[in-house]
Amino acid sequence: MMFQEKGQLRIPGPTPVPGRALRAMAKPMVNHRGPEFRDLLKGLTDRVKRVFKTQNDVIFLTASGTGAMEACVSNILSPQDKVVVTVAGYFGERFAKICEGYGAQVIRVKSEPGRPVEPSSIEERLASSPGVKAVFVTHNETSTGVQNDLEGISRVARGHGALVVVDAVSSLGAVRLETDEWGLDVVATASQKALMVPPGLSVVSVSQRAWEAIRSSRAPRFYFDLEKAKASLEKGETPFTPAISIFYALDETLGMIEQEGLENIFLRHERVTRMLRRGVRALGLELLAEDHCASKTVTAVRAPAGIDADALRRLANRQYGVVMAGGQGELSGKIFRIGHMGYVDFMDVIGVVAVLELCLSQMGYPVKLGAGVAACEEVLLS
Amino acid sequence: MMFQEKGQLRIPGPTPVPGRALRAMAKPMVNHRGPEFRDLLKGLTDRVKRVFKTQNDVIFLTASGTGAMEACVSNILSPQDKVVVTVAGYFGERFAKICEGYGAQVIRVKSEPGRPVEPSSIEERLASSPGVKAVFVTHNETSTGVQNDLEGISRVARGHGALVVVDAVSSLGAVRLETDEWGLDVVATASQKALMVPPGLSVVSVSQRAWEAIRSSRAPRFYFDLEKAKASLEKGETPFTPAISIFYALDETLGMIEQEGLENIFLRHERVTRMLRRGVRALGLELLAEDHCASKTVTAVRAPAGIDADALRRLANRQYGVVMAGGQGELSGKIFRIGHMGYVDFMDVIGVVAVLELCLSQMGYPVKLGAGVAACEEVLLS
Repeated sequence: MMFQEKGQLRIPGPTPVPGRALRAMAKPMVNHRGPEFRDLLKGLTDRVKRVFKTQNDVIFLTASGTGAMEACVSNILSPQDKVVVTVAGYFGERFAKICEGYGAQVIRVKSEPGRPVEPSSIEERLASSPGVKAVFVTHNETSTGVQNDLEGISRVARGHGALVVVDAVSSLGAVRLETDEWGLDVVATASQKALMVPPGLSVVSVSQRAWEAIRSSRAPRFYFDLEKAKASLEKGETPFTPAISIFYALDETLGMIEQEGLENIFLRHERVTRMLRRGVRALGLELLAEDHCASKTVTAVRAPAGIDADALRRLANRQYGVVMAGGQGELSGKIFRIGHMGYVDFMDVIGVVAVLELCLSQMGYPVKLGAGVAACEEVLLS
Repeated sequence: MMFQEKGQLRIPGPTPVPGRALRAMAKPMVNHRGPEFRDLLKGLTDRVKRVFKTQNDVIFLTASGTGAMEACVSNILSPQDKVVVTVAGYFGERFAKICEGYGAQVIRVKSEPGRPVEPSSIEERLASSPGVKAVFVTHNETSTGVQNDLEGISRVARGHGALVVVDAVSSLGAVRLETDEWGLDVVATASQKALMVPPGLSVVSVSQRAWEAIRSSRAPRFYFDLEKAKASLEKGETPFTPAISIFYALDETLGMIEQEGLENIFLRHERVTRMLRRGVRALGLELLAEDHCASKTVTAVRAPAGIDADALRRLANRQYGVVMAGGQGELSGKIFRIGHMGYVDFMDVIGVVAVLELCLSQMGYPVKLGAGVAACEEVLLS
């Protein structure tokens, strides 16, 4: 009844890679210190800056997103530095753990699952804890499907003279992120999310203010040394052998991003999010995050009473080839998460909602077949 | 007269990737926490252990070789630890710098360019400096085309109770390396060398003795945390998103390695090395390393008097599509380096030697056309 490999990968990363990007990776290797790669690196650096909305330096690192997060920490902090970290879920907690690993004094500002960390909470903590060097913000918290108010948090942090360091792994290229306008000092993202290429490459932007902090930081780093990367970039190189194939793929997807236009991409992500949320609610299911703080790249859905989220996911995968993510930590078994970033359009959402209808029906949960899809279609026609 | 892209990439990495491995990367993404990737990771882990000749744990890291070298350091050392590092060139020096970056007391045991670090020199330093925690060894020094006597150095190091930590980036899978038999505690390699796949993935083996050191080490690490990786591996996962496409490629090239057989691969590398060295010498050029310590994966050639090594490389590249590497540091302009590891056979060597004949002749250096190639052929027939 179905081709397994045609199935939908609807986890929040790695996301589906367009065929032209996959095919681009079949190009032969080149010398990473030769003219072909130099031209490619220069071009991609300039073009990715436009996605970051920045004139800051932008550095590629051959590593997945957590490597870039660690680079943010190890380049900026010294032991005993005081930092504030937004913890709206698993990835905020990861940022906090990395900071602690490097000996920083970490002040966590937490929110309940499904709620964002409010700028006002950050304001309170900064007001009562003078001398905070940096505020680490998860822009989009993948574990709960919540988007933090990055612009608001950045304003507060800068008001207290703190650097703003952003995990934009699951947001950049899908939702508005204005690096320069919002004064974001360091922004890290990774290839396998909205940039639509395979995992293994990450990107970090660094402001002038951040470079000053980096110069005085005393944490150990070598592979992720951003100053070394900047010096190499001035020669059109990376300090260490880069993941050449993934650069080839990015060359293709940046072309797609430029062709569609960032504003249209943001609208598409908003629209598929609205469709999905309306469709899921029409089936009587609850969403973990409220609309005003809902992620535009991943949606967390509460499994209804009597339905195990993981059993639902297994059925969707086995019988319909739709792969969704589960809950992490205390949310395990209680929620499932649907990724919708990058190479995603309305049909993907309709497909997922249809599969939810089918699975819930098979599991004995009362749904009216077609009701979710109808709600999606209404959004599309509105 | 030539297709540029058909040219030969003869740098010591990235090395040419076989078509079937390039094509394998066009497969769609999968969930890195799902059954397909779990099976792939398990299979590749078992199979790569056979290339490492080990029953130790083997950990994949999404990073290029220097990331793996840093993992060796940051997982094992604590600040103030005393270590010995073999420095036969640029990459030995890199290992030393990483150790210093993590606060270790580094004792460098250096050799002249083109000479190996002798086990007897290591013995002397260990005898006069008690309490050395680990000896860091570059198996194959890519910058000078020299192979250190890893087995001998390991014997000496273990005799003094030191851990043996090996940079096998440009040796593993091309020349004999017996992780278990030689008692190598940590061995690091990378994908883009003899393993014949694109850059972006590295592999580290860890002995029981090394795990004990890791448990008590106090250096900061997160992305490269080997204990975390081991815990994830037990669930069939990686702690962070892996470079899935490169795993696909490795699945293909490990199949090629198994089909040819490691012993045959070692013989092939020895043979192409002998051909190349004989061919180059027949043109009247000198090699940087003597035969007894010559690398089997990269050969450094001294440019003859009156010939600039970099001008020669530029001509070979521009006119004949052969890409060679230059000298690093003080050897810049004086040597050129020819990579011959991984997907390389006799015809590649004959091609390079022919191009050297052509270029030298064009640059006014007296060569008898065909003399180098004839010498290669003699080796092949012998």
